[in-house]
Amino acid sequence: MWASHKLTHELWSDICPSCKRKEGTLAPAKTHQQHCGLFSCSCHVLQESLLSSASGYSNYRGILNWCVVMLVLSNARLFLENIIKYGILVDPIQVVSLFLKDPYSWPAACLIIVSNVFILAALYIERRLSVGTISEWTGWILHIFNLTSMLIFPSATVLAVTSMTPVGGVVSLGVYTVLFLKLYSYQDTNRWCREIRQAKAKTLTRSYSCKFCCLSLDMYYFVFAPTLCYQLNFPRSPRIRKRFLMRRLFEMLFLMQLLVGLIQQVRRTFTWHTSHRQAHTHLVPNHLIWLIFFYWFFHSTMNFVAELLQFGDREFYKDWWNSESVTYFWANWNIPVHKWCLRHFYKPMMKKGINKFMAQMAVFLVSAFFHEYLVSVPLKMFRLWAFMGMMAQVPLAWFVGRFLNGNYGNAAVWISLIIGQPVAVLMYVHDYYVIHYGTTK
Amino acid sequence: MWASHKLTHELWSDICPSCKRKEGTLAPAKTHQQHCGLFSCSCHVLQESLLSSASGYSNYRGILNWCVVMLVLSNARLFLENIIKYGILVDPIQVVSLFLKDPYSWPAACLIIVSNVFILAALYIERRLSVGTISEWTGWILHIFNLTSMLIFPSATVLAVTSMTPVGGVVSLGVYTVLFLKLYSYQDTNRWCREIRQAKAKTLTRSYSCKFCCLSLDMYYFVFAPTLCYQLNFPRSPRIRKRFLMRRLFEMLFLMQLLVGLIQQVRRTFTWHTSHRQAHTHLVPNHLIWLIFFYWFFHSTMNFVAELLQFGDREFYKDWWNSESVTYFWANWNIPVHKWCLRHFYKPMMKKGINKFMAQMAVFLVSAFFHEYLVSVPLKMFRLWAFMGMMAQVPLAWFVGRFLNGNYGNAAVWISLIIGQPVAVLMYVHDYYVIHYGTTK
Repeated sequence: MWASHKLTHELWSDICPSCKRKEGTLAPAKTHQQHCGLFSCSCHVLQESLLSSASGYSNYRGILNWCVVMLVLSNARLFLENIIKYGILVDPIQVVSLFLKDPYSWPAACLIIVSNVFILAALYIERRLSVGTISEWTGWILHIFNLTSMLIFPSATVLAVTSMTPVGGVVSLGVYTVLFLKLYSYQDTNRWCREIRQAKAKTLTRSYSCKFCCLSLDMYYFVFAPTLCYQLNFPRSPRIRKRFLMRRLFEMLFLMQLLVGLIQQVRRTFTWHTSHRQAHTHLVPNHLIWLIFFYWFFHSTMNFVAELLQFGDREFYKDWWNSESVTYFWANWNIPVHKWCLRHFYKPMMKKGINKFMAQMAVFLVSAFFHEYLVSVPLKMFRLWAFMGMMAQVPLAWFVGRFLNGNYGNAAVWISLIIGQPVAVLMYVHDYYVIHYGTTK
Repeated sequence: MWASHKLTHELWSDICPSCKRKEGTLAPAKTHQQHCGLFSCSCHVLQESLLSSASGYSNYRGILNWCVVMLVLSNARLFLENIIKYGILVDPIQVVSLFLKDPYSWPAACLIIVSNVFILAALYIERRLSVGTISEWTGWILHIFNLTSMLIFPSATVLAVTSMTPVGGVVSLGVYTVLFLKLYSYQDTNRWCREIRQAKAKTLTRSYSCKFCCLSLDMYYFVFAPTLCYQLNFPRSPRIRKRFLMRRLFEMLFLMQLLVGLIQQVRRTFTWHTSHRQAHTHLVPNHLIWLIFFYWFFHSTMNFVAELLQFGDREFYKDWWNSESVTYFWANWNIPVHKWCLRHFYKPMMKKGINKFMAQMAVFLVSAFFHEYLVSVPLKMFRLWAFMGMMAQVPLAWFVGRFLNGNYGNAAVWISLIIGQPVAVLMYVHDYYVIHYGTTK
């Protein structure tokens, strides 16, 4: 203003009116900024706004807290009503009625108890294999037979037993599916073990003294551990943190209450007559239920179980909320299943020389099969909506990957979640009502 | 399982069934993880879930996108209705009617044009001071007179002119307040300049040839620049990014539309008769309006103006969404005002030996005064709700800082924003209706 640019710089760099210190350099903005913060002769520096993508800033923990606060505030009334009606826990009769039609017949519970037979069968086969009393080939045939039975037996039971409710069916089939994946991983990993042991045995001899030391205990630890991939020594957390355990337990109970409350509310307002025209009013509640379910299952419940068992690997999900492509979402929202698919399905296929695209398609096909299996059998309706929903991910992934990226890709993934999943759910609900009540009015 | 712990490690560390590579180390989990990713003998490592606070993870950019998607989806209908009714822009008659009662009288516009007188007066005083034709003391008196007039003249005009609408009043008083802060900063910074120049002049003599080279241009650049703090050479961005400019312009227009739509909707549903019982139904829309206004003003508009003027410092806000205390929120959501308060009010007080707490209280008092000034005068009601709302921040800040921290502190800040600000707005709206319509029914 009263001097040339260079002179100004000299002027300012000599004495700062804030710190009254002499400066030796000719770059006043930076050094004064460091010396006296904002109260300096030049208080502006060249920089981008945080929300501009050019800033590279991404710490939005507060926005997550905002979502939680908004969710709690907007559901506070519903939650209080539930508390007043049913106390701390959800209406027990309604919850029990989801599982039981006839109080003297507990088909789902019985089915789950029977699953021990398959676990023990797998353990028995492995024991025989490890001491070499049966050949690798016989062992493999027996495992395949055992695993196939684990899919056919429960589904046949669910379809045959009339006192089985849809929710009881989903839970027991879910348990069997999880066990199926776990036992598949168990036999696969053990076979790799033997292969290495044999490679090793050729070069040196050792006594494998503690071969069966804790075989059955080890097996049940794996059955209850929150993972689908077997390994010999799981990483263990050093101790059970009681405060952490209590917090997860509180979350489990609170969110269970919230979930049941939300589902009951959606059911109350649901009549197909209005909903097929105003389907969009169901999108947001359905999506919120899914989000809360995600947190309840993948964070609260899995961490609770892991803490109890001192299971060290808590990576049950990655940052799928930042997904910029559909593929990234599917690879990161459910890490136990993704890990299993990669380790026991995708990579073995790749090693057999199947090309990448075919292997990916196969993973989606198997995933689609299990989605359909878990929905169609308990509802006793074969509609293929879940199967088609999963298979529709392939062209969707291609489209998003081809045309969108960054925050636009992320928004596309969110929109596909907000719209896609509730639509599939509504399809089944509609068909279920039509079959069981003739109409949905 | 078939070997002791150490043997297992040796076994696994020798050959990995995935990569078939020999390992030289005895820490298989880590090295295999690096070698072959998930398809390795041990596929679990000790780690925390991302959502656990122990993980230290904080990248939730996707959650912000989720909020935007949800906001757009849930307001899509309202937005489409507005588009169909009024076209791309908001209803022009309604917007104009906010500013004008009588189409032949434009009091707000005239008032804003008159503000040039004060700008030129400040410039004139500074010119006199810089050449030394008036003394420092005379200059200071003249500046104080000029600045005081800038607060009294517009408020007197707003109160006296009957054709002034409340919105016109807020806008013109807002412009005058911004100019007041800018011109205060202008004279303060220039005085510091002269002090340094005099200190300099004692030791050596120079010719300040280009003293007035671009004095008036410089002044108007500062008047339009998105900052309240004057400095001699603002950092400049190298060029105008046209895509950036267009995006900000689009956001400005789109969000303006959304804001006006939301405000009209809130007004339609507002009757005090229902709202004093169901005030909570107004909290969320009010809060959303504030959030959208924040983005519209502090990100879109300020960046648009800065890009046009090639003004380099885009720090108009910091990460207030992560505020874990009330103080952090007030220091980070409005950086231009915060910078001004720090540079021209708080730090000069500190240098005069006023203690920290008193200085902070004084800043809150001045801030409360301006909040009240900008609301009471245009509405022609002196109710002190805004003043009390600002002063209530002091005990609130103490409470949150004393009892809450981390995510709980953040949640408390959000709750105070969601509840506090809409309540203050409702107070004024209620009183305004009572005064102007006798009742709110």
